[in-house]
Amino acid sequence: MQHLDALQSIQTPAVVVDRERLSHNLARVQKIAEENGLRLRPHIKTHKCIELARMQLDYGACGITAAKASEALVFIESGVSSVTVAYPVIDPCKARTLVKVAVASKCELRFIADNERTLEALGQAAAESDNAIGVFIKIDVGLGRVGLKPDAEELSSMAHAIAKTPKLEFRGLLSHAGQCYAANGRKEVRKIAESERRQLLMAQDRIEQSGLQVPELSVGSTPTVLAAENFEGLSEIRPGNYVFCDLTAVRLGVATLAEVALSVVTSVVSMNETYAIIDAGSKVLSSDLGPHGSSGVRGFGKAVPLELEIDNGASSSALSVERLSEEHGFVRHGGVDIRVGDRLRVVPNHSCPVVNLADYLWIMNQDRTTDRWKVAAAGRVI
Amino acid sequence: MQHLDALQSIQTPAVVVDRERLSHNLARVQKIAEENGLRLRPHIKTHKCIELARMQLDYGACGITAAKASEALVFIESGVSSVTVAYPVIDPCKARTLVKVAVASKCELRFIADNERTLEALGQAAAESDNAIGVFIKIDVGLGRVGLKPDAEELSSMAHAIAKTPKLEFRGLLSHAGQCYAANGRKEVRKIAESERRQLLMAQDRIEQSGLQVPELSVGSTPTVLAAENFEGLSEIRPGNYVFCDLTAVRLGVATLAEVALSVVTSVVSMNETYAIIDAGSKVLSSDLGPHGSSGVRGFGKAVPLELEIDNGASSSALSVERLSEEHGFVRHGGVDIRVGDRLRVVPNHSCPVVNLADYLWIMNQDRTTDRWKVAAAGRVI
Repeated sequence: MQHLDALQSIQTPAVVVDRERLSHNLARVQKIAEENGLRLRPHIKTHKCIELARMQLDYGACGITAAKASEALVFIESGVSSVTVAYPVIDPCKARTLVKVAVASKCELRFIADNERTLEALGQAAAESDNAIGVFIKIDVGLGRVGLKPDAEELSSMAHAIAKTPKLEFRGLLSHAGQCYAANGRKEVRKIAESERRQLLMAQDRIEQSGLQVPELSVGSTPTVLAAENFEGLSEIRPGNYVFCDLTAVRLGVATLAEVALSVVTSVVSMNETYAIIDAGSKVLSSDLGPHGSSGVRGFGKAVPLELEIDNGASSSALSVERLSEEHGFVRHGGVDIRVGDRLRVVPNHSCPVVNLADYLWIMNQDRTTDRWKVAAAGRVI
Repeated sequence: MQHLDALQSIQTPAVVVDRERLSHNLARVQKIAEENGLRLRPHIKTHKCIELARMQLDYGACGITAAKASEALVFIESGVSSVTVAYPVIDPCKARTLVKVAVASKCELRFIADNERTLEALGQAAAESDNAIGVFIKIDVGLGRVGLKPDAEELSSMAHAIAKTPKLEFRGLLSHAGQCYAANGRKEVRKIAESERRQLLMAQDRIEQSGLQVPELSVGSTPTVLAAENFEGLSEIRPGNYVFCDLTAVRLGVATLAEVALSVVTSVVSMNETYAIIDAGSKVLSSDLGPHGSSGVRGFGKAVPLELEIDNGASSSALSVERLSEEHGFVRHGGVDIRVGDRLRVVPNHSCPVVNLADYLWIMNQDRTTDRWKVAAAGRVI
């Protein structure tokens, strides 16, 4: 075990990242993008780290995607040259701040909209700026969250409204098939990805028939990007979780345990008949069963002794983190010899909220050195 | 609605606290303590705010309780004169840091232990200090987490081991009846509180029969403190959540909606057939169904229009936050007239993790002014 010394000596709980696996994951998705003639614009909500965004750009990403204004600001200020805020920014003040900072940082800024209120906020912010702002229409391809349906009556009129607003540029259509997290495996995820693609093409067709070009079609989600076979007609992918993966990606069959790059090093602080109690609870692992409120998942992670690599071989030794208090995890030990002071590594259900709860990520480099990266955009509102 | 202007103009999502309700809650529990001859040592893991700890001390609290070393440090450094770290600190380095800072800050420090490893860590830290450290034995009164059972064979020997260790002082027994969160109402919570009391008295009796005095019996949890009728023999209560309460306290019948002091102001950013989509997801509200992994709860909070006071009258208008993505909440609108840009206030299932995810709490004072308190101890490891 390459990093055993570091994992033994680090103060717990600690969120650690295996650099080799991280690099593998970055290369894997960059390759998918390049082989399919797609731009990769990774969603940084997963890691919120400037160092990691820089790695993604070095691997060939064309820019980044952010989940909210506050997150976007951190990355614009760090010098990223193109940012999509994949969230309906309805607050003119937030939109104005973003535009100002982007102009000062020479950053290309792109937004989404699915309603007039958002268009107004973006239009106002753009009007005060020298630069044009790109706007995508968000298409709801089945998650039932934000977006117009591809057959919505108002689709074309909204595209024309964007195009007609001074300083707004209609950039195209953007979707997130988050319903794939409820799928029962890779095959079903692939079907969802194909359905997403067809829905975007259909919406594009409707708008182009009304006389307006749709320059870009942008799709998101790690599972659909990893499972899809056909990207024809699409221009951009925006996966986020792929950098680390987690038990959800493994459950969906789009990554193996050996590709999971993030885990939480914990110490056993107490033992009882049923449980080894570890120093990572819901304030470290989050209570997430998976993205978008996945259900039917049991437990809050898998715990593995430090000495084992996290891969399919370790799977049989993995113990379930069955319950969580705020600062305690309940690991069902089933009589396995665990003692107070032992350390367990937990692979979480969902990496994204785990990172959001951490101040730092500990990076285990291939040369056995360790880096500490700040989770720069965690917890901020604006 | 006294604070409507502030609630309308604040940037969302925002965690807001009603000062009047907060004061009511502080007075309510201080009164329980005084009427029953108990010391109140509130658990600050709920609020993590120096300003709020100071209010609790002003109301008469004898000190505070913290959930982990990093949290304790923030409050010791802020000048709190007595702190119990209600967590088994097994890391000698963390124990040493705490002791050093406590000595420098003239703070009385108290720990818990249920195993030899913790005793060793505390003994080592104390040995390097001029001051003695108080140690409680944690008693497991039914949660099945940390602690010795009251009838555990090693109970008395551990008490004697503490008493014999140089610089460690055996302070007594400490418990947390967290299983009360799974109760079906106030009556069952009261039974659990009475069972906790009896178990502590029994454990005290066993240790005293072995020739060692048990100076203090300390119990925790907001529901048990609010529901209990008999505190005889106990010396200290350590509730945390009572400052804000939440849907869990209401469900258990220990607080009314009119006593819930914390809510999250959100904006509706998109609308679809089924849901109003708000800008508060699992990274704001957490995915908690309740403390200690409560189950059987539906939804992640109740959403109420800004114009309504959060009380039993608002209950019928409350909408369920049915699902969460990371930055989106799905509020089932049932055809109610809600528009993009409207604001909804969400009462969460569990206040504690919501505060932990926030940078600041916005305090709505009775004179209509607003304060912003930093969540000073959020997210820190040590």
